[in-house]
Amino acid sequence: MTRIAAVQMSPVIANLMVNRGTVGAAIAGALREGADIVVLPELATSGYVFQNMEELRSVAIPADGALFDEWAALASTRPSSVIVAGFAEAGADGAVYNSAAVVTAAGVLGIYRKVHLWDQEKRFFTPGSDAPLIVETAHGRLGVMICFDLEFPEWTRIAALAGAKMLAVPTNWPYVDRPAGERPPEVQIAMAAARVNRMSIICSDRAGTERGVAWNEGTTIVDADGWVVSTVGPGDGVAWADLDASDSRKKQLAELSGVFTDRRPDLYAMVVEQPS
Amino acid sequence: MTRIAAVQMSPVIANLMVNRGTVGAAIAGALREGADIVVLPELATSGYVFQNMEELRSVAIPADGALFDEWAALASTRPSSVIVAGFAEAGADGAVYNSAAVVTAAGVLGIYRKVHLWDQEKRFFTPGSDAPLIVETAHGRLGVMICFDLEFPEWTRIAALAGAKMLAVPTNWPYVDRPAGERPPEVQIAMAAARVNRMSIICSDRAGTERGVAWNEGTTIVDADGWVVSTVGPGDGVAWADLDASDSRKKQLAELSGVFTDRRPDLYAMVVEQPS
Repeated sequence: MTRIAAVQMSPVIANLMVNRGTVGAAIAGALREGADIVVLPELATSGYVFQNMEELRSVAIPADGALFDEWAALASTRPSSVIVAGFAEAGADGAVYNSAAVVTAAGVLGIYRKVHLWDQEKRFFTPGSDAPLIVETAHGRLGVMICFDLEFPEWTRIAALAGAKMLAVPTNWPYVDRPAGERPPEVQIAMAAARVNRMSIICSDRAGTERGVAWNEGTTIVDADGWVVSTVGPGDGVAWADLDASDSRKKQLAELSGVFTDRRPDLYAMVVEQPS
Repeated sequence: MTRIAAVQMSPVIANLMVNRGTVGAAIAGALREGADIVVLPELATSGYVFQNMEELRSVAIPADGALFDEWAALASTRPSSVIVAGFAEAGADGAVYNSAAVVTAAGVLGIYRKVHLWDQEKRFFTPGSDAPLIVETAHGRLGVMICFDLEFPEWTRIAALAGAKMLAVPTNWPYVDRPAGERPPEVQIAMAAARVNRMSIICSDRAGTERGVAWNEGTTIVDADGWVVSTVGPGDGVAWADLDASDSRKKQLAELSGVFTDRRPDLYAMVVEQPS
């Protein structure tokens, strides 16, 4: 079993120093409590609602930044542990990306740049152009994407087809209304994506309010059957779950049916086209 | 607004005459109560758990069968009404298909042959090889697929990209365990498919038990925001909802984001490949 900690937290907008401390403490705490994989929100080190590019650039860090050395040092306190967290990436090309880093005791294992940018993010960030990140970890193959990426079933399918057993999804879900008693719509989407791919999904969301933007505070761990196994609720906190990565290997659904084997890729070519 | 009736019923296995009566009465009743679109389950005229091909063939009917004339006559009692129902189709090629017919007062508007056959269905039916059926109706563009098809997000996306405002899904969902308080997993999948495509989805399920197979009895109407607006619960019955087909035209999610415009089809080409 792999012990998952999905951290829900409230970074301070544009204050890298404060967030470095908050994120570091959250990672250290989760590892101390036995987490094998710690997932933090999107843009956990920078906040989200930027006023201008200068503000964003002031908290953007390179993919080989010293901050990740600190996280690697934290990871070294717990054997085989893996940290996934969102940050604003200062690209070598001068662009800023909405990225997530996967860090182990050995250092940065991979960087993912968000491909599907939500709304005003397009004014600040350059979209990524690579597939969902897939990394080999001591706990199985881990996929990574960010927030709005999850709402494109093509993208979760690609991660599953690439063999991801678990999908880590740092998010900042702006608050949206929903009927009483219902989960956030993004959680519904995560549940379905987990179910149709038999792949567990870990979503770490923001808490609090930032410059008038509230969040769903919807941190949720979904198992490979598509069921919610842990949430945080309102405010800062950590969702915990023990996931069996082998669950996601159960792609065979019945004697003659499987999630992948029943696909009809010959008929899906049209899915890449845009609507008329 | 379009008034939807999703019929949950219990056909008798391999008894076309009895089912013809039950289905006809259900259609007539729904139209009398003001339904604009009536959706019935998968294989509503034949039942599902066949013992052998001879039994299946005994209740398979051609796509131009007299039964559809009866349904067209019923449709003529309610202006602009549309009937969608599953049946076992005796193909001109000698094969039997798990099909759905769309019938209006003018006759058969279209036939869809299930592409993703579930488990033992593969022993009886030949899979379809056409895209989800898309028909123009007085209530907007209607998409049709059957049961397990819904669990392939590629397939629902294709229907949405083809402009379907509503998706009718005749189903036979065999009973599966689920955590207390949860909806059937197929309903979770329908909710997410509706949400990510902003397309309402109407699922009409079986009731009762047939040769030891129980059903989820999960008939559900989901609106274009992905929320459940009507269900039947256990036993025979009808879920009713008034859907605004214009809801599904709200593909623009925010100033700079849309369900289709934010897709990255250039990056999705890989989705058609099978896993290694």
